[in-house]
Amino acid sequence: MQQTKTLKELAEYLGGTVQGDEACRVNGLAPLESAAGDKITFLANPKYASKVAETGAGAVLMSPGGEAYGRNVIEVGNPYLAFAKLLTLFYVQPHAPRGVMPEACIGIGVLLGEDISIYPGAIVGDHVTLGDRCVIHSGAVIYAGVTIGDDTIVHANAVIRERCRIGNRCVIQPGAVIGSDGFGYAPDGSSYYPIPQIGIVVLEDDVEIGANTCIDRAALEVTLIKRGTKVDNLVQIAHNCQIGEDTMLCSQVGISGSARVGNHVTLTGQVGVAGHLTIGDNVMVGAKSGVPSSLEPNAGYSGIPALPHKQWLKSMAVVANLPDLKKSVTALEKKIAELESKLAKE
Amino acid sequence: MQQTKTLKELAEYLGGTVQGDEACRVNGLAPLESAAGDKITFLANPKYASKVAETGAGAVLMSPGGEAYGRNVIEVGNPYLAFAKLLTLFYVQPHAPRGVMPEACIGIGVLLGEDISIYPGAIVGDHVTLGDRCVIHSGAVIYAGVTIGDDTIVHANAVIRERCRIGNRCVIQPGAVIGSDGFGYAPDGSSYYPIPQIGIVVLEDDVEIGANTCIDRAALEVTLIKRGTKVDNLVQIAHNCQIGEDTMLCSQVGISGSARVGNHVTLTGQVGVAGHLTIGDNVMVGAKSGVPSSLEPNAGYSGIPALPHKQWLKSMAVVANLPDLKKSVTALEKKIAELESKLAKE
Amino acid sequence: MQQTKTLKELAEYLGGTVQGDEACRVNGLAPLESAAGDKITFLANPKYASKVAETGAGAVLMSPGGEAYGRNVIEVGNPYLAFAKLLTLFYVQPHAPRGVMPEACIGIGVLLGEDISIYPGAIVGDHVTLGDRCVIHSGAVIYAGVTIGDDTIVHANAVIRERCRIGNRCVIQPGAVIGSDGFGYAPDGSSYYPIPQIGIVVLEDDVEIGANTCIDRAALEVTLIKRGTKVDNLVQIAHNCQIGEDTMLCSQVGISGSARVGNHVTLTGQVGVAGHLTIGDNVMVGAKSGVPSSLEPNAGYSGIPALPHKQWLKSMAVVANLPDLKKSVTALEKKIAELESKLAKE
Repeated sequence: MQQTKTLKELAEYLGGTVQGDEACRVNGLAPLESAAGDKITFLANPKYASKVAETGAGAVLMSPGGEAYGRNVIEVGNPYLAFAKLLTLFYVQPHAPRGVMPEACIGIGVLLGEDISIYPGAIVGDHVTLGDRCVIHSGAVIYAGVTIGDDTIVHANAVIRERCRIGNRCVIQPGAVIGSDGFGYAPDGSSYYPIPQIGIVVLEDDVEIGANTCIDRAALEVTLIKRGTKVDNLVQIAHNCQIGEDTMLCSQVGISGSARVGNHVTLTGQVGVAGHLTIGDNVMVGAKSGVPSSLEPNAGYSGIPALPHKQWLKSMAVVANLPDLKKSVTALEKKIAELESKLAKE
Repeated sequence: MQQTKTLKELAEYLGGTVQGDEACRVNGLAPLESAAGDKITFLANPKYASKVAETGAGAVLMSPGGEAYGRNVIEVGNPYLAFAKLLTLFYVQPHAPRGVMPEACIGIGVLLGEDISIYPGAIVGDHVTLGDRCVIHSGAVIYAGVTIGDDTIVHANAVIRERCRIGNRCVIQPGAVIGSDGFGYAPDGSSYYPIPQIGIVVLEDDVEIGANTCIDRAALEVTLIKRGTKVDNLVQIAHNCQIGEDTMLCSQVGISGSARVGNHVTLTGQVGVAGHLTIGDNVMVGAKSGVPSSLEPNAGYSGIPALPHKQWLKSMAVVANLPDLKKSVTALEKKIAELESKLAKE
Repeated sequence: MQQTKTLKELAEYLGGTVQGDEACRVNGLAPLESAAGDKITFLANPKYASKVAETGAGAVLMSPGGEAYGRNVIEVGNPYLAFAKLLTLFYVQPHAPRGVMPEACIGIGVLLGEDISIYPGAIVGDHVTLGDRCVIHSGAVIYAGVTIGDDTIVHANAVIRERCRIGNRCVIQPGAVIGSDGFGYAPDGSSYYPIPQIGIVVLEDDVEIGANTCIDRAALEVTLIKRGTKVDNLVQIAHNCQIGEDTMLCSQVGISGSARVGNHVTLTGQVGVAGHLTIGDNVMVGAKSGVPSSLEPNAGYSGIPALPHKQWLKSMAVVANLPDLKKSVTALEKKIAELESKLAKE
């Protein structure tokens, strides 16, 4: 963690341009307010531009054309992304492969890629396939017949049930459950008969799944999470759902069975989505909203039941003052009664 | 999975009646739209009756008296249930007992039934009793003194804490926690003193518990889930609750302490229920609702706080247009002021 | 569990005063209604004072000056707290240390305190420090570099990720995840680049964490839960949050990134809190509320979005009757039109 880099090296790594001393060396990142001279900082929000004048950082990542206040600067198109990339460069060490460690448990017919790590207490079932450089942490349980791509990390005590397929570069946080049985029962008059859930879950490449999130296997075919989608902690994705690419599902979101969610959608915290509906691409749904029916693409929605976001804001402003509105109506009723009575007398 | 059955055999299995070729053989199920001639399909929703004319399936499960369009038909009272039963028949193989597998860990004084399976990395504590044909998957932890009935499946990394009792034919999905300490604290003026939770959880027969669902042990006595009730993923059931028979708790429902939920109740996704109240039999609560007080049986409710469902629907229709209602009131106020002023002048 | 105590002994233990027979012996606790003569019961809620006359209990814990109805009484300032303390005294046995049990897995460079218990299948990573009398249950996974204080209990299948720090006398229920990666991604135009989450989680002393609850590690520094705070099951605490002392977070609460929650706050079930805001000390938020912006201390709030609690109650009373309000407005419009028409004719 004590490597140092010149600004020239960093600019090349990021595809940016140095304004100032290319030979200046830094060894890490720090916030604008607290950075010392051996650190690089970043300005992502123009609101804080004046802080650049006072930072003690050795250099600042900022958008082209920003005011440098005499500082060394690396100009990059997306300073926040550049910050994230330098965090990786300075602080994330590649995982040194540890092989199959003692007290890991490997079934029969397992295919292991190169440079894998399987920690003590991890359980890899029969006929599982693991890609190169996979890391399976302690207590993770991979049921029989699962396939996992390259560079995927499965954290402690996560569970992947039988035959599910996980892509490349996926990250599965601790305690997540992939492939639990869907919640499907046929009423038989008085009780419920469990419908066998014989499908699977497929996670495409670059999907990340949060801690203790649950994704149910399909009844017959596939519950599908497409490339690049990120799922936060404690999210529920029911059987037969299809979630698009580069979509964000924030914490405690719940999606009912057979729903289809588009690409580049954001469902914020605790949103609930009914089953058998479609959410279009580029939709944003506000926190705690309930979505009872399909949503048109390229728009924002909020509320229970969800309305177009601006309409909901206006309605909620009225809700906060409903008792006043009611009083106004009562006052009007009284005035009209008076008017009527007055006119009747005339 | 390659067994084939004649329609006669299937009709006998289901208690139905063949219309058409009894000797026709099928080897599995498929949807109306995509079934080939070696598959049987089903018509549960009369809305899709016309699709029967076009299906390529070898036979169709449908209600007595439906239009067969010349197809082979098995008439059954409940085609959806029949479909579920055939799924089981064709696709679910009985679990071949594997005994106590290497690297499973069994405590002292454990009573094991016949034909059980305990997978590697499963932990069975001291003085546990397991019924016949139980399956305990890898990483499941059964604390001391737990009793589990026959034919119950405990999936990977589920936890059943000390002394809890699980019935016959229960299914516990991965990561579920049965018997965690109830959330009970006595304020001591400035801080909170933890109240020992010395009760247990009892699951009766045929109860199914979803992935990462949590059921807290009672403070003193029993948190009880009665026969046949199905609980989805990520549900919270607090200490001292009593949940009736054949009730459905959908994903992310939360039930506070000492609540009583009746038989044949359905709480849909993300519903919250306050403590120390009673929900009557046959109640249905709409998604995301909040239930602050007891609910009468045989009715539907929605909203935060929950109202009778139809009343809530009507209120929400007005909420969506509240800004217009407010404008109407403002317009009325103006008109009345004008009228008053006009009358005053007269 | 069959120890008996005299009322004199119990009064000394609790700092209370006996009214009646100091030599009376009891061997446990029971509710007012069902207690037999060898049990002590308690009266916490004055509403039930008359039940004291009928209890079969050998003695009653009550506030000074309460009506004893001729019963033996121990007078204590806080009978509910006294009840909790006697539950501990009668029913909770100190955990007999079992050491590192067979099939537990201990990394290199681990520092173990005295009288610890590490159960079979628990995984303690490299360079972990465990305080005296810690109990690590089966399947719990402690990643490398974690520090845990004295008398802390980590239940089965809980996960504590790398470098997190846990205080003294903490309790972590089964399946909880401490230190999962925060949900931080930098948009790169079309997809999301994962921002390394290099911070940690710190739990101070006497913090309790519910089953399957998730607390994300900070992006750069610390996600902090302060002394004495209790967190229920299935709660989400996002990266960089700071939760105050003696705060209660009930089940299924979700707190977004970088939020600050004060001391002695209560967030009841399923409350959601947006990121980057501050909730003042002694705030109470009603069940299922959504908090979009900072809340002033010493007050109650409810609703989505949250309003002062009483304002919300009044608004919800109107919401329940909105269709009537709308009808009133329509009726007024009609009457005014009539009046206007009448006046026009005159």
